[in-house]
Amino acid sequence: MAKTKGRVTLPSETGFLEETKEIMERWGADALRDSDGTKLDDDLKALDAKIYMTYFVARGHNEFARAHMEECQQLYLMSQRHTAVEEKLLISFMDGYFQEQVIPDYIHDPKKWWEVIDRTSGEAVPADAWELDQEQHRITLYAVPFHEYTVSFLVYAIWDPTQMYNHITNDWGERPHEIPFDVRQSSSGAFAKEYLIQWLKDNPSTDVVRFTTFFYHFTLVFNDLAKEKFVDWFGYGATVSVQALEEFEQEYGYALRPEDLVDNGYYNSPFRVPSKHYLDYMDFIQRFVVRKAKELVDLVHAAGREAMMFLGDNWIGTEPYGKYFGEIGLDAVVGSVGGGVSLRLISEIPHVKYTEGRFLPYFFPDTFYEGNDPVPEAMRDWIRARRAIMRKPVDRIGYGGYLSLAYKFPAFVDYIEKVTDEFRLIYDSIKGVSPYCGLKVAILNSWGTLRSWQPYMVAHELRYKQCYSYMGMMESLSGMAVDVSFLSFADIRENGIPADIDVMINAGDAMTAFSGGEEWLDPAITTAIRRWVWNGGGFLGVGEPTACHANGRFFQLADVLGVDKELGFTLSTDKYFTQEQSGHFIRMQSFKEDQSNIENSSPAEDRSIIENPSAAENLKFTENQNDFLAQHDGKPQITFDFGEGVKNIYAIDEKTEIIEYSDGEVHAAAHPYGKGYGVYFAGLPYSFANTRLLMNALYYAAHRTGDILTWYSSNPACEVHAYPGTGKFAVLNNTLELQKTTVCDGRQWKKYDLQPGEIIWGTTRED
Amino acid sequence: MAKTKGRVTLPSETGFLEETKEIMERWGADALRDSDGTKLDDDLKALDAKIYMTYFVARGHNEFARAHMEECQQLYLMSQRHTAVEEKLLISFMDGYFQEQVIPDYIHDPKKWWEVIDRTSGEAVPADAWELDQEQHRITLYAVPFHEYTVSFLVYAIWDPTQMYNHITNDWGERPHEIPFDVRQSSSGAFAKEYLIQWLKDNPSTDVVRFTTFFYHFTLVFNDLAKEKFVDWFGYGATVSVQALEEFEQEYGYALRPEDLVDNGYYNSPFRVPSKHYLDYMDFIQRFVVRKAKELVDLVHAAGREAMMFLGDNWIGTEPYGKYFGEIGLDAVVGSVGGGVSLRLISEIPHVKYTEGRFLPYFFPDTFYEGNDPVPEAMRDWIRARRAIMRKPVDRIGYGGYLSLAYKFPAFVDYIEKVTDEFRLIYDSIKGVSPYCGLKVAILNSWGTLRSWQPYMVAHELRYKQCYSYMGMMESLSGMAVDVSFLSFADIRENGIPADIDVMINAGDAMTAFSGGEEWLDPAITTAIRRWVWNGGGFLGVGEPTACHANGRFFQLADVLGVDKELGFTLSTDKYFTQEQSGHFIRMQSFKEDQSNIENSSPAEDRSIIENPSAAENLKFTENQNDFLAQHDGKPQITFDFGEGVKNIYAIDEKTEIIEYSDGEVHAAAHPYGKGYGVYFAGLPYSFANTRLLMNALYYAAHRTGDILTWYSSNPACEVHAYPGTGKFAVLNNTLELQKTTVCDGRQWKKYDLQPGEIIWGTTRED
Repeated sequence: MAKTKGRVTLPSETGFLEETKEIMERWGADALRDSDGTKLDDDLKALDAKIYMTYFVARGHNEFARAHMEECQQLYLMSQRHTAVEEKLLISFMDGYFQEQVIPDYIHDPKKWWEVIDRTSGEAVPADAWELDQEQHRITLYAVPFHEYTVSFLVYAIWDPTQMYNHITNDWGERPHEIPFDVRQSSSGAFAKEYLIQWLKDNPSTDVVRFTTFFYHFTLVFNDLAKEKFVDWFGYGATVSVQALEEFEQEYGYALRPEDLVDNGYYNSPFRVPSKHYLDYMDFIQRFVVRKAKELVDLVHAAGREAMMFLGDNWIGTEPYGKYFGEIGLDAVVGSVGGGVSLRLISEIPHVKYTEGRFLPYFFPDTFYEGNDPVPEAMRDWIRARRAIMRKPVDRIGYGGYLSLAYKFPAFVDYIEKVTDEFRLIYDSIKGVSPYCGLKVAILNSWGTLRSWQPYMVAHELRYKQCYSYMGMMESLSGMAVDVSFLSFADIRENGIPADIDVMINAGDAMTAFSGGEEWLDPAITTAIRRWVWNGGGFLGVGEPTACHANGRFFQLADVLGVDKELGFTLSTDKYFTQEQSGHFIRMQSFKEDQSNIENSSPAEDRSIIENPSAAENLKFTENQNDFLAQHDGKPQITFDFGEGVKNIYAIDEKTEIIEYSDGEVHAAAHPYGKGYGVYFAGLPYSFANTRLLMNALYYAAHRTGDILTWYSSNPACEVHAYPGTGKFAVLNNTLELQKTTVCDGRQWKKYDLQPGEIIWGTTRED
Repeated sequence: MAKTKGRVTLPSETGFLEETKEIMERWGADALRDSDGTKLDDDLKALDAKIYMTYFVARGHNEFARAHMEECQQLYLMSQRHTAVEEKLLISFMDGYFQEQVIPDYIHDPKKWWEVIDRTSGEAVPADAWELDQEQHRITLYAVPFHEYTVSFLVYAIWDPTQMYNHITNDWGERPHEIPFDVRQSSSGAFAKEYLIQWLKDNPSTDVVRFTTFFYHFTLVFNDLAKEKFVDWFGYGATVSVQALEEFEQEYGYALRPEDLVDNGYYNSPFRVPSKHYLDYMDFIQRFVVRKAKELVDLVHAAGREAMMFLGDNWIGTEPYGKYFGEIGLDAVVGSVGGGVSLRLISEIPHVKYTEGRFLPYFFPDTFYEGNDPVPEAMRDWIRARRAIMRKPVDRIGYGGYLSLAYKFPAFVDYIEKVTDEFRLIYDSIKGVSPYCGLKVAILNSWGTLRSWQPYMVAHELRYKQCYSYMGMMESLSGMAVDVSFLSFADIRENGIPADIDVMINAGDAMTAFSGGEEWLDPAITTAIRRWVWNGGGFLGVGEPTACHANGRFFQLADVLGVDKELGFTLSTDKYFTQEQSGHFIRMQSFKEDQSNIENSSPAEDRSIIENPSAAENLKFTENQNDFLAQHDGKPQITFDFGEGVKNIYAIDEKTEIIEYSDGEVHAAAHPYGKGYGVYFAGLPYSFANTRLLMNALYYAAHRTGDILTWYSSNPACEVHAYPGTGKFAVLNNTLELQKTTVCDGRQWKKYDLQPGEIIWGTTRED
């Protein structure tokens, strides 16, 4: 493979010049960056590379901040729940919070801005029924005995959450706590601009200002033991201030209550179906953030530099997939890549000139310590992200941390050299060329495009028991040869269902924003989808799709899906349908034809193609599943893993094709509905098998089974991506082992032997 | 054991005189009965035994019924759900119903008595928007496309469900279908009385009229393939008629809608939290049934006979635990015994002179066929029911079916001879003597005493996946040394919590009548229970207790239970408490002391008692669980089986004592609340281990751990029942194997070796 250069960002550090030059050469890096705890000295900045500098807008200026503590960022917090056991109740509302992070706001009148709520009746306690003791951080209220009460109170945040996390984790001792200030306030707003102007002057060799990030940190609150208490990577908690609330009221004509933000202590988690008030508030914050961010970006541009945004930390309100993001005028976004989903989350961000993925492992001692081999982690991460890159590449990759640490691991340096070359080869081969997509899929939830590639996350892509069975579906889709879009219930109400969608997916636990909750009681939604499926659309549900108990159903589209969940109310009704259909199309591990006339044609240079025109024809069977079964009898079937699954699902009628039935429950099923199809899975954690299962299901739901062999890999551990615009295609081994697979381009089959992690490129053109 | 006689009912049949005499002698039977398909001839009736005769009130008189088809019983049925795909929709509402069982009622105006419902909007379709085609049993309506519709229609039932079931199951061919008529109608009501008067004259040798049963069958509807479609052993479906609805409106001042009875197709399953309208209707029907039943029972008494009611079949509206049942004036109730729960369901029925349990196996060819041994089934059934008999005996036991069949199995005849002797010995030993109860337990649900011993049943005690984890708790309680009562939410609202209750239990799936659903949003309920627990009560939840999502909680009494269920909304909130407490009191399989000074004192005649006064003292530890742990370190712990369990349960605070934690979830926990305790289990299917677990939990919840050794068996497969009034106690081996156990009477321990199924009797009195 010819040595190539570019599209790679390297972290470096003071006093590491020669090694940096060596690695720049080997990895083909064309940009250098600082990281948390590292600085670039002038020698480094003089190298032939773009220089990125991390820039903090709203923290790290304690001299200013200390002089304007009334402009610290604010949050609404909810106290612990307290039960009154007599008619008087004392609530020490700061209990359980970390007083080094937050302090109560006694500047603004608590009687106006705070709220004591009776969580038994659901009602707010009148302000004249409670008293505040500012010395003790305590509220005394006249209570109804054995009702539960909480206090919603405003605090000032006096410690930036990211610095706090790093400070505590790395035991930074006396290092000052960075105080986060709110650029909505007059002094802070002015300071942020002035400081940047000066900084740009002071840092002439910086080519790219790497905003980390803008103004408001995602919600991260610690407890009194300095441990994480609440984390929401999407949370608008820290955007609040009395000024914001006043401006909101002025603009919208109604005042938000503390409860609009506290939300029973859920703080409008993205799992909550968003209220009208919260959506208004988000829009209000977005418009402010975008306006202020544009001011800073304009300054960067005026100074002849590029503006790059880090996707995380103080990113709240930027909403890269929102209506306003483009107005900021950013040149680039960089984000951390944990897998295919986060890769796509970055690479699909619109309105920027380029995107960059910061890959794992981070060059920190947690991975780079003596005795540990960082290569396997790097391989796994790369291979997992790579399948998403094949669909929509980031424009650059990079790393972070201490280069000097990574340098001590020559095998790692070797491996990343291969990765960077491979990345450039992929990028040069496919950038700007649309990959072949067999189907167009839309994911329907309460958030729609605003939260593209972001569903089911709590903290940034951590594995949660309640999420992985849905995140897995997203991960599968991130590298699958389908076009993925996002759709909200409001979109359907306003614009109907886009005409080009083949399959709509609704997936999530009941009553969450991802399944949709009471949205399913709106006939405008259910009738639009029913009509669309009836006319040929595919509807795929995972978990508790369309769930909201009403009118005799839990799944409001049980008639489409062919299954519903037994809640206990229909135990008296006999359930007749329990027979699993062995060998259902959706369950087939592979549709590979008899191999006798398939030639082993690896390496890819051999482009002689065996004619086998009947391959795809054989899969055009959906009108008669029995014919299919007879034909594919005995072929390997997928071993199911539904992850957390969902209990008590049953088939509602005789048309339901039960694909998996065990423990008295259905976990996978398909159901014809007019010219369309409903398909159900109890869960889809990420695996090669489930990716195959999902792909089969999508083609089945779309009544497009006959097309599945167009760019098809018989081995689910391998995938094939094709680029009709150039005639190129790539066969990927997604494992760290040797793999064999047979690929069909829709007409003929061809065999490949792949090394661990290998890509074999081919072309369909005889040029 | 001395031969005893009485308290046993034998089925017999024509031409089986000598064998009947032999078995009467061996089993000590003092009553003979006919059964389905058998008759007693005069020779048999002349024997020294009470004669029971099965009597059907509302079926089996086809000559009368055919002449009064407009007086057939009626039901409201809901058609299948149909989706409109254009503005006109045809619904063949009889589809899926069995036309030999039900026919549409075209006599009463369908426009008035039927209802077409839009199940997408939840609204009824105006009567002028649909047309009925009586020829085709079809309704045509003006529909909103892609809304779902159902028709609620009145039918006449033209075949008694029990006879239908037997007829179809046994392939009775041309035998006439017995037509059920409605005694509310004038001719039928008169006929029922006149016929009984004549029948009493015609059957002078009948001592006991065994009503099977009165007027209205539990809801049992078949489908178009003559298979069961809907079965609700508690259903009032077949009590309806136009006349009943008119009388209801007159009395209550409002009209019921068909939907009040159809209830989204759930037909007011007992799992539904009952609506006010349905409760009114039930009360209305009960008063009618009781009034009419009393007329018949009075006739029986006037003829000098006894009136016995069969608990089942046409029992609807009698509600043996209801307000009116006593007014019927019955002498006895007989019911089928499947285990401890159904035994208690029969034995606790008030207002009758005696109760009788019909034991299994039934003498039918499904069990009594060549090659099968009916003894093991008989042993299991007897042993399971026996522990409930020890708490509250039925007054008689009996069997049913073909005695000639059972006679062919001498080992069975031998075994039942032992059973009947054992039953009489138990009965004579304990009847009228209160058993020792360590605690008083109340089961809280929407039904309260009305449905004593009936929760969680669909068909009569069949095992359902969604129920067995709760039924198991009932089965455990049925033979446990605790006083069990039933309590409704209305009871608490009206009368508060009875002062003598030690532990309240709320168990069931969310939103069912057994957990209570929206009842938990009534502060009158939650505050009453909180106050009561705070002051020392115990609250035990199983499954999804107190569940109704509101105000930031799913379990409304999460503060008492110490656990809640993660619905996805608090994933952002860190869950700190995951540490299982090994060796928790509740988990201890046995508190048996060191055995060195415990004497093997079986057989029971040896009453020398070892002094060991510290035994019970050692368990007084609840103030300090750690002391307890140290003391009981290494003792065997219970292996958990939570049955279906509940997912995603987490501990809410540091006070929660996690007894079992696995798969990222809590399945058993305890939680102090004031002077009281909450305890949680994810499920309690019936087993010896779970019975022990439940008993431990009840004592723990009640803060009465120090009392648990009063009548305690170290081996959970054995139980001890004591009768302080007489000084007797009984040690039971509840298995078919040999068992050893050590029994504590609260002061000292004593060892027992028990034969399979053995009872060893003892006494605490030196008389």
